[in-house]
Amino acid sequence: MARYANAKRIQLMIEGLDRFTATPGQGTTRATFSQEFRQGSDFLRARMLEAGLAVREDAIGNLIGRLEGRDPSLAPIVVGSHFDSVPHGGKFDGPAGVIAGIETAFLFRERGLAPERPIEIIAMIEEEGARFGGGLMASRLLTGQLDVTSLADIRDGDGISFMDALCTYGLEPARVQEAVLQAGSVHAFLELHIEQGPVLETHGEDVAIIDRIVGQVELGVTIRGRAGHAGTTPMGARRDALEGAVSVLSKLPTLARDIGRDAVLTVGKLELKPGGANVIPETVDFTIDIRAPEEEVVRDLLAKTRTAVEGARSLGLSTEIREQLYARPTLLSREIHAKLSAHAAALGLKSRSMVSGAGHDAMIMADFAPTGLIFVPSRGGISHAPEEWTDYDQLARGVDVVFAAVREMSGTAV
Amino acid sequence: MARYANAKRIQLMIEGLDRFTATPGQGTTRATFSQEFRQGSDFLRARMLEAGLAVREDAIGNLIGRLEGRDPSLAPIVVGSHFDSVPHGGKFDGPAGVIAGIETAFLFRERGLAPERPIEIIAMIEEEGARFGGGLMASRLLTGQLDVTSLADIRDGDGISFMDALCTYGLEPARVQEAVLQAGSVHAFLELHIEQGPVLETHGEDVAIIDRIVGQVELGVTIRGRAGHAGTTPMGARRDALEGAVSVLSKLPTLARDIGRDAVLTVGKLELKPGGANVIPETVDFTIDIRAPEEEVVRDLLAKTRTAVEGARSLGLSTEIREQLYARPTLLSREIHAKLSAHAAALGLKSRSMVSGAGHDAMIMADFAPTGLIFVPSRGGISHAPEEWTDYDQLARGVDVVFAAVREMSGTAV
Repeated sequence: MARYANAKRIQLMIEGLDRFTATPGQGTTRATFSQEFRQGSDFLRARMLEAGLAVREDAIGNLIGRLEGRDPSLAPIVVGSHFDSVPHGGKFDGPAGVIAGIETAFLFRERGLAPERPIEIIAMIEEEGARFGGGLMASRLLTGQLDVTSLADIRDGDGISFMDALCTYGLEPARVQEAVLQAGSVHAFLELHIEQGPVLETHGEDVAIIDRIVGQVELGVTIRGRAGHAGTTPMGARRDALEGAVSVLSKLPTLARDIGRDAVLTVGKLELKPGGANVIPETVDFTIDIRAPEEEVVRDLLAKTRTAVEGARSLGLSTEIREQLYARPTLLSREIHAKLSAHAAALGLKSRSMVSGAGHDAMIMADFAPTGLIFVPSRGGISHAPEEWTDYDQLARGVDVVFAAVREMSGTAV
Repeated sequence: MARYANAKRIQLMIEGLDRFTATPGQGTTRATFSQEFRQGSDFLRARMLEAGLAVREDAIGNLIGRLEGRDPSLAPIVVGSHFDSVPHGGKFDGPAGVIAGIETAFLFRERGLAPERPIEIIAMIEEEGARFGGGLMASRLLTGQLDVTSLADIRDGDGISFMDALCTYGLEPARVQEAVLQAGSVHAFLELHIEQGPVLETHGEDVAIIDRIVGQVELGVTIRGRAGHAGTTPMGARRDALEGAVSVLSKLPTLARDIGRDAVLTVGKLELKPGGANVIPETVDFTIDIRAPEEEVVRDLLAKTRTAVEGARSLGLSTEIREQLYARPTLLSREIHAKLSAHAAALGLKSRSMVSGAGHDAMIMADFAPTGLIFVPSRGGISHAPEEWTDYDQLARGVDVVFAAVREMSGTAV
């Protein structure tokens, strides 16, 4: 049982928001600016109002509920996450953090707590990038990492521009610049998120306090041989691109395991061309996703991966490697990490310090304001699937930590 | 230089037919019953008429030109191949054999030769299966291997039924049964085809006389693990379907090489799901195409392949194997093989006896009538691509062999 947070209220909010999906019965599908997204925003607005917050929508569709501080001139503590989803995803990825914020506001209201510093709960758009690509769009726009002028060129898979979708959603494209935050306008950012991995569950722990977000490289690889007829080309006369790709792929996971230090390597996308059952593959295209907490490990694994890919040349194949993403590890605020850890301990929770293997809005916010990130367990480590699950009691224990930290950081008398 | 055949006339016929493509400048695309197919049929009809043949179109769209025999009651020698193409294919695969037949008729006419036995030149539909799937449709229908009643259920990728397409092409669906050949109505079938492999070119040989067509198995394989987030799932906690597939795929080509005896094994189609760059693959689906001249070799390689696939279970993955095709080796007529070989030798050509690694209409006809198949070289072994090429002189030398064999087999006085 959580000490403060109300697991039942959290459940009602999670399930209430989850009614707004384009794929009922087949997981959560809530694309940014869709009809379900507007309905979800309205639902969250109503909960924020119930929790006593003053609610506004910013110029790009983020929903913000504010608990005024005794000193309104102080920069607020911002608590939140996103409420868009991947197609056929789960109901916790994103909403858990938004609702952790709203539940925190409920706890302030119920206890009649008056913070010195304002508190804002934020529900953000387009973290997944499922509609407009790229991902982390709200945090990148808020912090100036993504220039608003670039929005004119962003379209979804159906060719609908971000600006047109924004208009349909009821907002004014001409005003998007207003969403950008002024330097110093956020005192701290706190995000609660589901782990999306198996570590907390495996160790029977309640929460993880994140100290950094991994560095990440994404490579696009093409191995090219020569197509040929599957029946008429003798084994000795082949330059089979798949045979080359397999010789590379068979080495990659071992490279990550041998380096250790929490390095992971994943090939999640792979395509053969021409792709006929009776045609020897001419090209194999695949991605390699490399992540590790330490940049030197990322670089080491990247170098070894490049060497492995180039090894396919010894089979008479050509290789091409494109570096599609390079992101250094992001350090989160040590001070906030210490506070969150101390509150977790004081609450009697089992916690661990952890590196996040996934990017989150907190990763972007960390370059703008002191930022903290806390994980709650994911059953079976599953996410981005209808089976995604976190027990409501576990989620409530995570909210307890957020509440305790916000109370302290907002200068609230206990 | 060929002794009899006219390479220039052959070139004009190949290039003339190739004007009728749906993708000018991007290879030959001539789908059965398309507008280009009708134009191609009209072009071939005109050439057959020039060569002195009586031309008819059968009930399923095959074009047949007949050189009457001195004894019209004798079953004809049938010479031909197909004139449909794969999308963006080449101009020789199929047409080379049709035009070899027409050129043979020109040679009879020019020399004033009067065969005792009738000779028919056939240009067949839908060998590739590019429009209606399955392939070898004309020969399977002619010989009764494919029942005409099943045509009612056959549709193309756009949902257009075979029967509707036939109707649009100007034929009567009610009459398709008339196309089926009576037992004994073909004295012999001869097909010239491009090799679609590198053997003749590599050895500097003119023609191959085929003694059998390989046996073939096509397997569909699914390897299933567990999806997971690429960043948050430690290497030790993964059940990566691709890692399992790679462990299988790394063994397969070696199995074929170790067995030797002209066995070949190809994985031409492979798909990962869910297929996101940051998601550990849950399933990998791929095909395995196994071919060998001897059935015991096919069976041996098949058994070893199954064992290799099942090896992925030791990695905690599930495996499923579906046998999608099993075709025994097809023996062609020894008598015709001997005749073709003798004529090639008499013409001073370098020839070899060869096993065909690809199926052709001759494979189907062989179960119906004594059948011979002759290959001419493919530059670089390339086919099913715009770069597909056979020198016209090489093609003419192949036609010389066909002409000599048809002259002998039709009882034509020299």
